[in-house]
Amino acid sequence: MRLRFSAPFSAVFFALLFALLLALFSVQSCSAAVPAGENQPAGVRNIILLIGDGMGPAQFGLLESYARRAPNSIYQGRPTAVSQLMQQGKVLLSDTGPHDVLVTDSACSATQLAIGEASGSEMIGLNARGDSVETILQKAKRAGMRTGLVSDTRITHATPAAFAAHQPHRRFENEIAADLLTTVPDLMLSGGLRYFLPQDAANISTELQKKISAAQLTLKSKRTDQRNLLSEAQQQGYALAFNRQQLAQQQHLPVLGLFASSAMDDAIYASQNPDSAQPDLNELTRKALQLLGTSERGFFLMVEGGQIDWAAHNNDAGALLHELLRFDAAIQEVVNWAADRDDTLVVLTADHETGGFGFSYSAHDVPAARTLPGNGMRGQAFAPNYNFAPLSLLDRLYAQKKGYYRLWGDASTDASSDGNKGLPTADSLMAEVNAALDFPFSRTQAERVLRRDPNPYFDPQTDAPAAATQPHIEDFSDFYVYREERYLNALARELASAQSVVWSTGTHTAAPVPVVISGPEPILQNFQGFTRHAELGHQLKALIKTD
Amino acid sequence: MRLRFSAPFSAVFFALLFALLLALFSVQSCSAAVPAGENQPAGVRNIILLIGDGMGPAQFGLLESYARRAPNSIYQGRPTAVSQLMQQGKVLLSDTGPHDVLVTDSACSATQLAIGEASGSEMIGLNARGDSVETILQKAKRAGMRTGLVSDTRITHATPAAFAAHQPHRRFENEIAADLLTTVPDLMLSGGLRYFLPQDAANISTELQKKISAAQLTLKSKRTDQRNLLSEAQQQGYALAFNRQQLAQQQHLPVLGLFASSAMDDAIYASQNPDSAQPDLNELTRKALQLLGTSERGFFLMVEGGQIDWAAHNNDAGALLHELLRFDAAIQEVVNWAADRDDTLVVLTADHETGGFGFSYSAHDVPAARTLPGNGMRGQAFAPNYNFAPLSLLDRLYAQKKGYYRLWGDASTDASSDGNKGLPTADSLMAEVNAALDFPFSRTQAERVLRRDPNPYFDPQTDAPAAATQPHIEDFSDFYVYREERYLNALARELASAQSVVWSTGTHTAAPVPVVISGPEPILQNFQGFTRHAELGHQLKALIKTD
Repeated sequence: MRLRFSAPFSAVFFALLFALLLALFSVQSCSAAVPAGENQPAGVRNIILLIGDGMGPAQFGLLESYARRAPNSIYQGRPTAVSQLMQQGKVLLSDTGPHDVLVTDSACSATQLAIGEASGSEMIGLNARGDSVETILQKAKRAGMRTGLVSDTRITHATPAAFAAHQPHRRFENEIAADLLTTVPDLMLSGGLRYFLPQDAANISTELQKKISAAQLTLKSKRTDQRNLLSEAQQQGYALAFNRQQLAQQQHLPVLGLFASSAMDDAIYASQNPDSAQPDLNELTRKALQLLGTSERGFFLMVEGGQIDWAAHNNDAGALLHELLRFDAAIQEVVNWAADRDDTLVVLTADHETGGFGFSYSAHDVPAARTLPGNGMRGQAFAPNYNFAPLSLLDRLYAQKKGYYRLWGDASTDASSDGNKGLPTADSLMAEVNAALDFPFSRTQAERVLRRDPNPYFDPQTDAPAAATQPHIEDFSDFYVYREERYLNALARELASAQSVVWSTGTHTAAPVPVVISGPEPILQNFQGFTRHAELGHQLKALIKTD
Repeated sequence: MRLRFSAPFSAVFFALLFALLLALFSVQSCSAAVPAGENQPAGVRNIILLIGDGMGPAQFGLLESYARRAPNSIYQGRPTAVSQLMQQGKVLLSDTGPHDVLVTDSACSATQLAIGEASGSEMIGLNARGDSVETILQKAKRAGMRTGLVSDTRITHATPAAFAAHQPHRRFENEIAADLLTTVPDLMLSGGLRYFLPQDAANISTELQKKISAAQLTLKSKRTDQRNLLSEAQQQGYALAFNRQQLAQQQHLPVLGLFASSAMDDAIYASQNPDSAQPDLNELTRKALQLLGTSERGFFLMVEGGQIDWAAHNNDAGALLHELLRFDAAIQEVVNWAADRDDTLVVLTADHETGGFGFSYSAHDVPAARTLPGNGMRGQAFAPNYNFAPLSLLDRLYAQKKGYYRLWGDASTDASSDGNKGLPTADSLMAEVNAALDFPFSRTQAERVLRRDPNPYFDPQTDAPAAATQPHIEDFSDFYVYREERYLNALARELASAQSVVWSTGTHTAAPVPVVISGPEPILQNFQGFTRHAELGHQLKALIKTD
């Protein structure tokens, strides 16, 4: 039977239909406001995870203070990429603590993000029981997405490793390199060539030797076997790149780019050598987005600003600022790429805070009292009791020409009998610091930096005789665990008053880290308040649909 | 002429009307998702501003870690009030820096929040030019709202003062007390009686003397004039309260409650003396909400957890935890009160971070290797290289029975010739620390704490002879500006390794602080990303409508 409607009836019917559609449309257009509740969260096409290694709240603050408040900020009123993300998205705080302790290292923290479960200290891709757990990168691969890892450290280092390897300890970098070729991310761009070369590296193919020497990289290997992971990668279809030019030629996945024997250059050095053979982090990120962005089924990409952590371990404020600037430039590539997309989730966080960095007020060089015009002064001068750190310090930190690590090496000019460099002299150290920093540094200060003390943890059974003493750090000495690098921490102590910069440790702190999430509103609804990194990783992993 | 519609036409008309209404309703029901854009933000009835003095990101972390992870947490699975607020609302980060420097003190920071403009170091209620600017409390009063200030320090101290006084420096506490009675907040509950009593306090009325001595408070004055601000307050209509019982009797505004001569009790002492005459911060907050909550035109209330800062200045981790717990209990009162309301904005933030607090990993007492069952261990033991701070530390910090400040006073038993207490001996200090803390403390450690050095800032023209030397702090010494209190910082250094706790300074750091905002969704839309305290204050002030 065919239904027939009278004209007036059908007019009412269509009006009601229109009403319904209009209402539905209105509801849909505000779906953002509807909490996801019990529902399975919607999926998302692309996930880009940005990890500032050691980029705690105070490090976020240094970047923003410099960008907004430095008298000669290179940002010139432009917002940082970080604050653009924050403006678009949502901010959470996250506890980065491992399974059973309060403070994390990078391996465990990245693992928790990667596997979405609590993990143990210094583990790679394992949960707290020691079980191997599928990482978000592996799940993305299983879902048919493209996957990539980018870092300015080396690809076998803790943070990138945790997304594509499974090892009981981060120190197994040779095994991690092999794991990477088992997991087979579509794109890996970083340093770490020495873990891919066979022990007898001279045996590799002439073609590879040519390509590597064209990039001015050494053939030194750290492997203890004859596996040639470069040729294995080629057999798996990877194109290889060892410098900027070779990377530029890549137009297809998969790509393995290894641009340094070990770590890539630090940010200050990189910014002063823009024509070097080594591409910088923002270029790696741009290339990654170009290659992964065409994926039919979306992609997962992790980008690490990894030397933020190293600068902070050294308590090197100027280098820290430059590492933050380098990472922000990489984030800007992501923000630009994702600008008009509604299918991409961008997550920026840190794995932990490093160094306990801070600007602080002191009794050093307290400014003179001055008169203010305001009507509330009651004849009193403006005379703060302390030095609250003038804004010009931001420019002076930016002006630093060499990181402490490189500076120390350059000051160490005396060849000792074993062919290794000896210690700097007070004179060579003084000269180097004064040449590289906009903060005067005296011979007396240099002498204080060079002091040594007995090492309370010296073990004659296992330690080299030289480790019987260590550079002098008096307060919180147990937290300066990296032996000879304590010299750099001692240097930081000498510069602290003039820089208005303080540090609490040579390792990490447990400060909760910011998480900035930008992307489709219905997805953001699932992220809220105070979280933990394992939970955050779990939520991110759940966004990838394998059905 | 009267319009007449045919039946079918009117059916269509009403259907369309229905459609429109339905659509409008749908749009309205999701107004939360519509960005406020250029529009003037909607007003709000009540604003409650919660300031954790010195409660930086790491302090937020300590509270959450303790509540969630301490094996014997007093929270027993219940979320903190802070994380309840975070779960309901929104999180921002804010730069607390003054007009022209990077690090703030409490006076300037609270002033920036209060006046919504950049201010200068140590100023109260003035902008950076020195001009007196209407505070949010004063604007609320002008708008016909009720106003209140609650603090566990004293009412003339920097944070509460900045909301209702205008002085060129925070040290003018007598003038601040007088300013408070010019501004006339409807409710003031804190310590600070000594700034309200005339220099010759014996001259006050018998009735007042009786009331004060019933509260076991001293009649000592800090004033240098004969103004009796208590009787002035009474003449302005204030009811006065000096202890818990007198506060309980208050059923009407205005109320001035002064529960201590200077600062109120610290949190550890207060929690161990629940029957003392002095009400605790959560009780003050509950009373404030009871009295202000009935206001016809809404209210502005500021509640300060003020001794978080003091514990952190002393680098006293156990006391810091207890101050955070006390503040969280006060916040819980606010969360409970606001639970079913849609007319109240609750803003929780800090004025700055204090102490550069952190848990950190060290070479001290590294746990032994152990076997894990997991399939990823490859026969390797679980053997982290460092001590990453076991969770049991949280319980051991909670177990602290006395804050360092009080402990030091109690250890100082030798009366010196001038009637003041002398220094502790190594023995008395050792005994006090071991009695109060769950961390063993040796005589050698006590001796190290008691060392003194020449004071590089000693000025024989202005300083007392005793200030020629100061307690020994070697590293970052310029950042330990509070003379004899450096002993407490030295004590913290001796306990650091056992507690896995580090500190970078005896003053403040410039770490950006979290801002947690909970309330009506359309209002939250105006708060986003990375902000500055002056801007945050400006936005809050703009929510108060005086037309």
